Amino acid sequence: MINIGLLGFGTVGQGVYRILQDKGEDLKALLGLEIEVKSILVRDLYKERVTEVPLSKLTLNPDDIVSDDSIDIIVEVTGDVDLSYRIISKAFERGKHVVTANKAVVSAYFEELSHLAEENRVSFLYEASVAGGIPVLKPLKDQIRLNRISRIQGILNGTCNYILTRMTDEGLAYDEVLKEAQKLGYAEADPSSDVEGIDTMRKLRIISTIALGASITEDDIICDGIDKVSDLDIELLMDRGMKVKLIAEARKVEKGYQAIVQPKALPVASYFAGVNGAYNGISMDGNYSGTLGFQGPGAGMYPTANAIITDVIDCILETQKKDSPLRGRKLENRNEDIAATYYLRISGYDRSMDNIKEHLQEVLHDEDGEFAFISKEVKLYQLLHMLAEFEDKPFSLIAIEQ
Amino acid sequence: MINIGLLGFGTVGQGVYRILQDKGEDLKALLGLEIEVKSILVRDLYKERVTEVPLSKLTLNPDDIVSDDSIDIIVEVTGDVDLSYRIISKAFERGKHVVTANKAVVSAYFEELSHLAEENRVSFLYEASVAGGIPVLKPLKDQIRLNRISRIQGILNGTCNYILTRMTDEGLAYDEVLKEAQKLGYAEADPSSDVEGIDTMRKLRIISTIALGASITEDDIICDGIDKVSDLDIELLMDRGMKVKLIAEARKVEKGYQAIVQPKALPVASYFAGVNGAYNGISMDGNYSGTLGFQGPGAGMYPTANAIITDVIDCILETQKKDSPLRGRKLENRNEDIAATYYLRISGYDRSMDNIKEHLQEVLHDEDGEFAFISKEVKLYQLLHMLAEFEDKPFSLIAIEQ
Repeated sequence: MINIGLLGFGTVGQGVYRILQDKGEDLKALLGLEIEVKSILVRDLYKERVTEVPLSKLTLNPDDIVSDDSIDIIVEVTGDVDLSYRIISKAFERGKHVVTANKAVVSAYFEELSHLAEENRVSFLYEASVAGGIPVLKPLKDQIRLNRISRIQGILNGTCNYILTRMTDEGLAYDEVLKEAQKLGYAEADPSSDVEGIDTMRKLRIISTIALGASITEDDIICDGIDKVSDLDIELLMDRGMKVKLIAEARKVEKGYQAIVQPKALPVASYFAGVNGAYNGISMDGNYSGTLGFQGPGAGMYPTANAIITDVIDCILETQKKDSPLRGRKLENRNEDIAATYYLRISGYDRSMDNIKEHLQEVLHDEDGEFAFISKEVKLYQLLHMLAEFEDKPFSLIAIEQ
Repeated sequence: MINIGLLGFGTVGQGVYRILQDKGEDLKALLGLEIEVKSILVRDLYKERVTEVPLSKLTLNPDDIVSDDSIDIIVEVTGDVDLSYRIISKAFERGKHVVTANKAVVSAYFEELSHLAEENRVSFLYEASVAGGIPVLKPLKDQIRLNRISRIQGILNGTCNYILTRMTDEGLAYDEVLKEAQKLGYAEADPSSDVEGIDTMRKLRIISTIALGASITEDDIICDGIDKVSDLDIELLMDRGMKVKLIAEARKVEKGYQAIVQPKALPVASYFAGVNGAYNGISMDGNYSGTLGFQGPGAGMYPTANAIITDVIDCILETQKKDSPLRGRKLENRNEDIAATYYLRISGYDRSMDNIKEHLQEVLHDEDGEFAFISKEVKLYQLLHMLAEFEDKPFSLIAIEQ
């Protein structure tokens, strides 16, 4: 018998519980033993839930779970950072495996938790923390054994991709789609961590650290979101055969790396332009493997729970090594060298904003103070510096895929 | 020290040898021991090769390798069936792991070899046999632990996909592209096993047997190729917003399964329409996972060798279970129920071929005896039965994605 302590009983936590109930027989046949969810950390014991669960399994105290010696594996599906960090550390010290879907805590304490797990010879698996239901971290960890990964890219946030897809396909305005997405449960009441790119950035932090073998933390990543992208931007770029996507990207460059989350305009026939709706996609370029692409549901009860239980099975069967996948390579941050041609739209543009001229390649729109153009190739920092001078003017900046 | 016996020293075999030479240090750090290629089976000892290798490692006799007790892992990269079957069986009986890229032998003896490996508690891994460099079998084996896979589809042959892509993008004729592909090394001198769909069928045999959990053998799969697809067909379908691809597909249906390899016309924005050139792609639909898509290089020295060595490492680290992934479920073949709307072009059509009329939905082309139309929904067997009556008339049949 394997006992699981489940921290968090929202959508994903309930999905884990349900699959374990439904698949009990299959899992017993596969593993030769039963898996039981012994305790579940909740915030409210008496809340009504879709998933029926005996009251005796519920607890308000995380220490009940982590101190229980009969619990073998902690499944952590809260969105919390501080408490999760404390509980996960304690679990490792007590010899428990940890499976988590919580990108915030993995991103914040990746190196520390990875090493702590390795020291204690337990598994620390977090497949569901990046790209939800897509099995991508396990193949990535396999690939880095042999390959030098030169670049990893992704559409990593289903909310942003859903909003951009509907804006593109239906010509709708950002606010309109966001409101509908909130109503449908595709976006949170407070959507800022999604639409500002923070969630995507945390996921890039995780995959880029594994892919490039060097610690790339949240502070090392330039982060922009989709909250300034308007229907006009999407229309102007569609007219040029390009779709706008929120792309996370880390690449090895001479003497270091670059890491950025930004809206990007991609040719409509490109790989990422084909990843639509709430789907996520990832591609990685290795010197031996070539370019590998993965796509699938970026969230959702069952896809995410499926990824979590796949990790749980790996803990039990020991089919992933307990060694930390982190390589501790030293790479210098070269974000200041990031350069591209950009689509830039400024609201309230007037002729006094003279220093734009040197960057102009082609004007796409100039009406009622909305001025949109394609720039010459320019360093991002130089453009941002210029934009800072127009501090009260709203703008929208979208990199154009070369 | 891990000793490898390498059977076959063509492009892929040389790729394996080279990566093991180049990555010796990294592999030693990862595994805590060295990997050495001890013997290599070749057909000609004195042939000039791009890859330098000591003559003392070469042998003409496969039994030298399989009888050598110091050899731990056999890497089999011939295209042969009978000899390979004999050597792989003997290797299992002598307690050796086997890694192979040889889809022909896996397809022909899948159940027998899987069970023999399991009985002898050794690993039998064949990631490179399907979709070359794309890690897809390992994730698939993970997925079937929990999911019921209802459908698996793929573009599994790089040669066919390369030919169709160039015909589509450049409006070229089939023969022209095939000749060029042969010159460039993308197609064999005798391309029949590729262009007739046989190679694709073998790969579908492997992935469908794992995905659906029932033995689906070569005889269970309807197999068509791309050799009858003309530039006219591609043009007429492109005019309707569809791209032609050679698609392998197996699906669970009521009371059984269907499995088929056929040219298919897909909407240009669909997932497989975006898999171009020599690339391969696979998608699988699971009840928990949703639809997962994988794409990457379907062949090539380093991508394939990379997949093979990833399997070799899994043998050494025991990070894949030795249990056979085959489930032995009983499913009835329901291919006779396969129905769709079809694009059909007949050369030398004349008005006497009256029985076509009942299937006509829309005529696309009627000139100089070339008659092309879209059919109503019809059973494939019914259509093939009708076509058999016009036995001397060449035709091209392409299923239309619903």
